Amino acid sequence: MAEILKGAPVMKALNAKMQEKVAALAEKGITPTLAIFRVGEREDDLSYERGAMKRCESVGVAVKNVVLPADVSEEEFFKTLDALHNAKDVHGIPLFRPLPKQIDGEKARQSIAPAKDVDGCTDGSLAGVFTNTKLGYPPCTAQAAMEILKFYGVELKGKKAAVIGRSLVIGRPVAMMLMHENATVTICHTKTKDVPSITRDADIIIAAAGQMESVTAEYLSAGQTIIDVGINVDAEGNLKGDVKASDADGIVAAYTPVPGGVGTVTTSVLVGHVVEAAERYAATL
Amino acid sequence: MAEILKGAPVMKALNAKMQEKVAALAEKGITPTLAIFRVGEREDDLSYERGAMKRCESVGVAVKNVVLPADVSEEEFFKTLDALHNAKDVHGIPLFRPLPKQIDGEKARQSIAPAKDVDGCTDGSLAGVFTNTKLGYPPCTAQAAMEILKFYGVELKGKKAAVIGRSLVIGRPVAMMLMHENATVTICHTKTKDVPSITRDADIIIAAAGQMESVTAEYLSAGQTIIDVGINVDAEGNLKGDVKASDADGIVAAYTPVPGGVGTVTTSVLVGHVVEAAERYAATL
Repeated sequence: MAEILKGAPVMKALNAKMQEKVAALAEKGITPTLAIFRVGEREDDLSYERGAMKRCESVGVAVKNVVLPADVSEEEFFKTLDALHNAKDVHGIPLFRPLPKQIDGEKARQSIAPAKDVDGCTDGSLAGVFTNTKLGYPPCTAQAAMEILKFYGVELKGKKAAVIGRSLVIGRPVAMMLMHENATVTICHTKTKDVPSITRDADIIIAAAGQMESVTAEYLSAGQTIIDVGINVDAEGNLKGDVKASDADGIVAAYTPVPGGVGTVTTSVLVGHVVEAAERYAATL
Repeated sequence: MAEILKGAPVMKALNAKMQEKVAALAEKGITPTLAIFRVGEREDDLSYERGAMKRCESVGVAVKNVVLPADVSEEEFFKTLDALHNAKDVHGIPLFRPLPKQIDGEKARQSIAPAKDVDGCTDGSLAGVFTNTKLGYPPCTAQAAMEILKFYGVELKGKKAAVIGRSLVIGRPVAMMLMHENATVTICHTKTKDVPSITRDADIIIAAAGQMESVTAEYLSAGQTIIDVGINVDAEGNLKGDVKASDADGIVAAYTPVPGGVGTVTTSVLVGHVVEAAERYAATL
């Protein structure tokens, strides 16, 4: 039986660290503040918002809610975004996407200031991930995967890591972050031939292809640690990962469950970025 | 005997393409112009300058020489750099480094506009390489490696590529560029265990560790294509690559020589970026 790398203890440890930082910032008169800038009433956005607000509240991070109607003009949208950038009491602005079609989503992404880009979606943040410098923030899911590995003491230096998926929200950034920790990384994608031969040979697998239970026994070998980033819904409405958990359980050393793994940690990483943004702001005073 | 992938024919093909583009720009009254902004008289800089000027001349790209004394003040340096940014008739500004110690080299790098960053050294250019978008320009050596593979018709899609080295000028960007062409890439570095087992298993090897003749027979296998990015000088003053050519010759399918391989193509790539920068500028008129 493999060890189950639950997200909850990682989340708790991150939250505890954040609470200390929030207390230190309070002494300087600063309350880390997340702007939740929502357009319209999409269910996905509302669900994200509820999760973020709850987590913020639990660690003492303030939330500033800004809601615009779904039919807002592009001009009004960017005016509001600019105001949030200029507000000294706002430290992080995650961008809800997709935006309504009258708003240029790419322009919106590009106009988020890296300093407030707690979601890690701008070119500045991505350059930071690539160059390993503190320019913006890494994408939250990629960092959540790294936080789990760190919390459970999984050694990365000199180890082989296989990343399945090359998206900008997880595959590519997590590959760079693993490399910065001195792992030897191979990035697999839809054009890779014989993915199982590559993943079987790895010490660590990051499963981030977005294909339900596609990582089966033939992909796995003894002693491995698997981070399952997939969030898929099966025909019965149950959440399933990219890894077939019953296969992993009998073969590998450890794996993250779905639900209750990476997803549990991601919101804490987002809120942690807000705290870090407030700290960076405080350092400029 | 392996095929020798010489740089000269690649350079000639790139130059021919550039000449066509330069002629088309001339019809719009635009002469692509490279600013050579040198501080002091370092021999490396002078050698780079001579190479770039010669290549520019051969394809009809103009050069604007700006030279400051080695003891120039930081203020004067940045004033000059700003003026080059603002000059509409300057399309590319490579940054000579290292700069004299009174000038903040990192600030200089960050202040090059991605649109004129023909060397691919800014965060904007690196984000472009990471995200596969035309934000600035890729580092010239990394692109030179890709141009050689393309010119000689080396298939990348679905192939395994091993990159030795993870620098920002070659290892990391070439890994991303190979992945964008659908190769499955593994990045090896100083902390990688058993590099030969990884490189032997690859279809393409990019040798960019900067270690003279360190890639020997045990790293190689039949049918491979090797791009040797190393430029090392041996005790007798001869240029040597990172690959032991006599070993490669008897084993692999094809490899680039040193000298006469990647280095021969790099300056053409730089000048090609100047032409592309002029084209992008023309498109905004």
